[in-house]
Amino acid sequence: MDQRVSLITLGVDDVGAAWRFYEALGWECKEVEETVFVQAGGSAVVLWGREKLADDAGVEDARADGFGGMALAQNVRSREEVDEVVAAAEAAGATITKPAAETFYGGYAAYFADLDGHLWEIAHNPGFTLRDDGSLVLPF
Amino acid sequence: MDQRVSLITLGVDDVGAAWRFYEALGWECKEVEETVFVQAGGSAVVLWGREKLADDAGVEDARADGFGGMALAQNVRSREEVDEVVAAAEAAGATITKPAAETFYGGYAAYFADLDGHLWEIAHNPGFTLRDDGSLVLPF
Repeated sequence: MDQRVSLITLGVDDVGAAWRFYEALGWECKEVEETVFVQAGGSAVVLWGREKLADDAGVEDARADGFGGMALAQNVRSREEVDEVVAAAEAAGATITKPAAETFYGGYAAYFADLDGHLWEIAHNPGFTLRDDGSLVLPF
Repeated sequence: MDQRVSLITLGVDDVGAAWRFYEALGWECKEVEETVFVQAGGSAVVLWGREKLADDAGVEDARADGFGGMALAQNVRSREEVDEVVAAAEAAGATITKPAAETFYGGYAAYFADLDGHLWEIAHNPGFTLRDDGSLVLPF
């Protein structure tokens, strides 16, 4: 199995609301048959009805609220950019679960939850390389 | 906010077990302070203790079992490769939640859950371009 992630699918309650949320953050979204696609570097983020996703994956959706044990992160180029993204997310309706603060690794980061509780960390980590195209390179 | 995902962090119960699982799938893992990093194209997958992730994100972990409303996908180049990856995952201890089958879009796909229930779809979708480096390009 290659070391690649092609799609990150976020199950959502209301595709239209989720679409508006990510558009408010400046994302270019393309809707195809009630599914919203966003090109994200060499991967794509997909917004899809949570029930459809559970059904497609062959799992029961107990609709447990809260933490699903997974988080996405976007690394940015400065502390100021962390603050800017978090402010934009809050303005778009996100819930800030952890305000921006110093991190143990000498960085600066915050977390927000989107409309469906999916967690995003926005981080400035001087130890991780961000290429000009935004791709991340681990230091080891 | 840029259209990028830098890190996909999978909260796990046992970092060592999760590490062995992904190594069994052929992934090159690097452990730093009980956190396992895997370069995945221009992003990285991270294996981290579920409690640490919840604490870092500032959320309660109700430890709801089951579907967390998110799934990852890896698109591959052929139907045979779908079968091969799913067989390798099952051999490594994954649970097949949906055996490989034809999809409504003319593709072929299966889902498995890793040791902590994180869902992976393995898909051959002739409508999505995979570059030589494995990066995915949406057709629209």
